[in-house]
Order: sequence, then structure tokens, then C-alpha cells
Amino acid sequence: MERKPFQNIHIVLVEPQGAGNIGSAARAMKNTGFKNLALVNPVDYKNDEAYKMACKADDVLLGAKVFTSLENATKDASMVIGTTRRKGRIRYPVLTFYDVLPRIIETAQKNNVFILFGREDKGLSNKEIELCSDVVEIPADKSYPSLNLSHAVFLVCYELFKHTAEEKGQAIKLASMEEINMMYEHLEKTLRKLGYGEKGGMHLLDVIMKSFRRLFGRTGLMHKEVNMVRGICTQIEKRVG
Amino acid sequence: MERKPFQNIHIVLVEPQGAGNIGSAARAMKNTGFKNLALVNPVDYKNDEAYKMACKADDVLLGAKVFTSLENATKDASMVIGTTRRKGRIRYPVLTFYDVLPRIIETAQKNNVFILFGREDKGLSNKEIELCSDVVEIPADKSYPSLNLSHAVFLVCYELFKHTAEEKGQAIKLASMEEINMMYEHLEKTLRKLGYGEKGGMHLLDVIMKSFRRLFGRTGLMHKEVNMVRGICTQIEKRVG
Repeated sequence: MERKPFQNIHIVLVEPQGAGNIGSAARAMKNTGFKNLALVNPVDYKNDEAYKMACKADDVLLGAKVFTSLENATKDASMVIGTTRRKGRIRYPVLTFYDVLPRIIETAQKNNVFILFGREDKGLSNKEIELCSDVVEIPADKSYPSLNLSHAVFLVCYELFKHTAEEKGQAIKLASMEEINMMYEHLEKTLRKLGYGEKGGMHLLDVIMKSFRRLFGRTGLMHKEVNMVRGICTQIEKRVG
Repeated sequence: MERKPFQNIHIVLVEPQGAGNIGSAARAMKNTGFKNLALVNPVDYKNDEAYKMACKADDVLLGAKVFTSLENATKDASMVIGTTRRKGRIRYPVLTFYDVLPRIIETAQKNNVFILFGREDKGLSNKEIELCSDVVEIPADKSYPSLNLSHAVFLVCYELFKHTAEEKGQAIKLASMEEINMMYEHLEKTLRKLGYGEKGGMHLLDVIMKSFRRLFGRTGLMHKEVNMVRGICTQIEKRVG
């Protein structure tokens, strides 16, 4: 079975300094169904340290494409996501990875998405960040928010894996953003008709719709779930004259 | 601010063989707000390999409690979750980690929960699995489902972190299972009254309720979200005579 998003998503490590981290990232990718690894000016990594960490993902490790510049590595990209750790002074409007996750999945249906991970110690440079269509951070505990490189790669791949995973041999059909937005419109119209959230006027309905967007946004809606919500809305409209 | 679930959750590595993995697990824990690390018969780990991987989580690494048996390590537990990889022949009824996640969070509000991770090569033994209240697997790609030990620890801690994370300085109040089950009852009653899913008789309503349980189960509901869903149900009941 084809799982298109996986084929179109590329993991790019920019100047990784640890061979073990590269091997470990390769394993994380294979564990989650990804294959496309690109390395920009990596440390020497075809050694025991990397093979040991890659374990049975040596095919992903050895299949990695090596580039001498980030521009070359990402030249086929429709979307470039840079991962970063929020600095004391924010350099850039930073979203979280979860904010862009639905958009990554949608874009990757038909287009190449490249997700960048910077150096272990210094992350991505300002110049590299300028090449990104979005810059995101991975939320973590304030006491120590800096993730190990392979952990960051694993989490990103795992979240993508979860949202596109096969279920009982059937690929889950995720709803498109367009479909989901139409569902929100339908839901809002129905709640208005139902008179829910009227006490505080329209403002309260706005709050409610924002809550629904957060709730459904966290989980990633499947096609059939969107249909279920809309079916219930239609039934409410029918019954509330 | 107290974040109780974190204080009551203990990560237990059973006979870990790699010092780097122990250090890396300590970092994963600190990144996600956890501190309680227990080690059962670990390899020698107070060395450069472990410190290098722990990075700034050396406090978690050095604070680890060492035990000579799993029984001793888990004697204060109310709930013991064993993580395992599904074998060719299933030894045990295996749930996924996501199936028990809400229960872990609920239990950890007031009780100690221990989550076990087995040896890098052989996982947990049958005898160790018998000590568990639940055995779960972490879903992964079929081509290579065996996760790196520290990746498994990181994912489990990260999912717990996400569901109990602070939001704008406010701890999110997660709904209890009791509250959630009452919401499902209310929702089912309302849908029945609404006549939704009637075409196929009661069977279709069952399918719909299962879909809702999966949809809301994936995301983990907050207290205010449960209230919102129930508020809408109440409004529907009012308007559909």
C-alpha cells in the first residue's frame, strides 16, 4: 500500500556533529516508516558508532543523501519547516510543531516537505532560518527544553506516523483542511441555530468555536469523523425547526 | 506550581545494558519534567558515556535509585505498566500505550505509577511481565518496530508531558474517566433523542459511540471540553421536544 505522505517527507540534519546521533536518527526514521534522510556537511558517519545506533536501519543511514549546502538539499521542497528552540529573545515568529502538523500532512500528500534539524549545540543559523517557510519549536519542559537531536527527529516522525498510520491494514483517510474548515462552518451555523452560547452574545460562540478548533486540532480528524460531526449537525438542523 | 502526576510517575529501566542509553533516558525525562528514575541491575553508568548523553540532566542521572530486583523497585506502586514489543506469538493481551494513557494520568493524580522498560535486546522477561498490572506496546512501523530504549522512554514521557503540560502558566485540568464516561452517556442519550443513527437501528448508534470514544480518546479531554460537549447536549435536549 502506498503511504504517500511518507514518501514526500524529507528529514534534513544540518551539520550534525555526532555520528551516533545520525545513526540514531536513521533508526527513529525507520521505526516510523520514513526513508528520506538528507545530511548537510555531516561529521564522518560511516563508522561503528553510527552503525551501532542505526541498528537495523542501516539502509536508511547508507541511503542518506549528502549535500554541501542547505540550498541544494532543499531545492525540490514545496515546504521547508525549520525546528528551533525558542531563544530568550525571539528571533522569529515561532509556532509549535503541533501548529503546523496538519499542514505538513496535507502538503505532503502531493508535495515535498523538508523538515530541518540544526546542529546539536547551536541549532540552525539565521541564514538557514531564512530558507524556511515555517519555523517551529518542539514544546518541552522549561527546566531543560533542549532535546537530544535524535529524540527531536523521533518525535516529529512519530507524530507524523501516528497521524498517517495504517489501521487494520486500511490507511486512515485523514480529512483535508478544506473539509475540516467546512465542518467548522457547519458546526458554528448549527450551534447558532440551536441557540447554544447565546447568553454572552456572539462572543461566546467565538470562544466555543476556538475550543473546538483546539480540541479537534490536537487529535487530527479523519474523513469519517468529519462526516459524523456534520451528520449530527444536519440532524440537529432537521429537528430544530 | 505543583504538577502532581509528574511526581508520582516513575520510570524503571530493567537491566539496561548501555550507559549511553541510561544517560539519554535521563535527558528525555528532564526534557519532559520527570525526575524519578529507577534502575534494576544496570550496567555501570557513572561514566563519561552516560554523562555525555545526559547532558544537563546529570541531576536526574545521579538521582537514579538502583535496585537489585524489580519487586523492590516497584514495591510502592499502585499501577505497574510494562512496555513490550508484540511478539510473533502474543504472550499476553497487549494494549497500546495510548489505550492506557488516560488511566495512567488519572491514577498518577494520587498514586504511584511505575512504567517499565526492558533490556535493549530482550525486553522484559515473562516473570517481570507477571508483575505488571498492564502490558502495553508502543505502536511503530511494521518494517522495524523495535525502538531505541531512550526513544521509547522519551515518547512515553513526552505523551504524558503533553497531556499535563502547563498552558500559559495554568495547569490544564484534565477530565477524570468518571466525568468522561458520564459525558459519553449523556451524548448517547442525546443522539438517541435526536434520532441520529436510527436508520440501522441501535447497532449504528453503538458504532457512532465507539467512534466518539476513539476520537476523544486520542486527544485526552480537558474538564472544560467535557462541560462544553455536555452543554451542547443539554441545549439539544431542550430544543428537541
